[in-house]
Amino acid sequence: MQISSSLLENAVNEFARLPGIGKKTALRLVLHLIKQEPSDVQRFSDAINRMKKDVLFCSVCNNVSDSRICNICSNPSRKKESICVVETIRDVIAIESTQQYNGLYHVLGGVISPLDGIGPDQLKIETLVQRIQNDGVEEVIFALSPNIQGDTTIYYIQKKIETFAAKVTTIARGIAFGGELEYADELTLGRSLQNRMPIEKYVSH
Amino acid sequence: MQISSSLLENAVNEFARLPGIGKKTALRLVLHLIKQEPSDVQRFSDAINRMKKDVLFCSVCNNVSDSRICNICSNPSRKKESICVVETIRDVIAIESTQQYNGLYHVLGGVISPLDGIGPDQLKIETLVQRIQNDGVEEVIFALSPNIQGDTTIYYIQKKIETFAAKVTTIARGIAFGGELEYADELTLGRSLQNRMPIEKYVSH
Repeated sequence: MQISSSLLENAVNEFARLPGIGKKTALRLVLHLIKQEPSDVQRFSDAINRMKKDVLFCSVCNNVSDSRICNICSNPSRKKESICVVETIRDVIAIESTQQYNGLYHVLGGVISPLDGIGPDQLKIETLVQRIQNDGVEEVIFALSPNIQGDTTIYYIQKKIETFAAKVTTIARGIAFGGELEYADELTLGRSLQNRMPIEKYVSH
Repeated sequence: MQISSSLLENAVNEFARLPGIGKKTALRLVLHLIKQEPSDVQRFSDAINRMKKDVLFCSVCNNVSDSRICNICSNPSRKKESICVVETIRDVIAIESTQQYNGLYHVLGGVISPLDGIGPDQLKIETLVQRIQNDGVEEVIFALSPNIQGDTTIYYIQKKIETFAAKVTTIARGIAFGGELEYADELTLGRSLQNRMPIEKYVSH
């Protein structure tokens, strides 16, 4: 791509570094910004700079936060006895959007994946174990990716916490609402048959 | 989308203002930036700010430029006798990428479109007419969108310049390379039959 302005080219190259943004999309975004008011563009870059400079990670659950303790952990109306273990901040946002969960979270920062060089020590597992041991946790809900790495991580953590009394669950796997049976993979369909549930429970949703 | 950090939320909202970027994509981009080195994020926002502050538009052809006259207009090896008339900066970049054109450009900034409230006065038509009249231009090549607005614009400009001696052409319309005949629309296929060309000319490409 030949651009007659090095300033424009720089901005395009920076945008094209972002995941999923190619050169053509980057050019479209930059040409959009060129047409905006200077104050709008300033606000855009200020928001990014301030976010990068001031954003914190909750010292309890590792969720993204404006303060040392995030507003989920510090919310007195949330159930402190329940911890939902997730991989990333994005998973917290996804579960929060369902408005079906009123407990706390713990963001691991990934899952155990020896092939990618990620062992238990790179994840926030130790602090999770401490929380479960010390904070009167009654239920640990795993909401990790349904693959070998996720299952390994669940197994590893479960071994560490099995001496404490906490109840351990994982979110249900099965056919998605709106999903078609014939297109479901065999593993999911087979498991959803094995784990079939009483119809009253289904209707109460 | 419920985000536990207002700093993160601000950045997501700013990204989501960009064309074609939804909330989920914006979140993905912002979470990517969070993981980068502070210096990388600074470079990203600096590139945008500097581009917005310092980028100029060529006083001759309206192309984006680092200086008062762009490096296409000021390049002594380019043919000053030929002007390619395009709608936007993006068209200049697209044509430059073909490396098939060695003349100058003129960026109109759009096409005449009464329904959108765009008349000839909002476009850089007057300066184009002056260039054709005064700069010894021998050929004017229209590379506008093949629709009513583009055709209207060509007709309007052609009326204004028909008293000068310049040759006026438009880029060829026809079946794209790799395009399948059966999927071509009737207008394009019909025109490409009408405007059929000697086989020698085709082979020489």
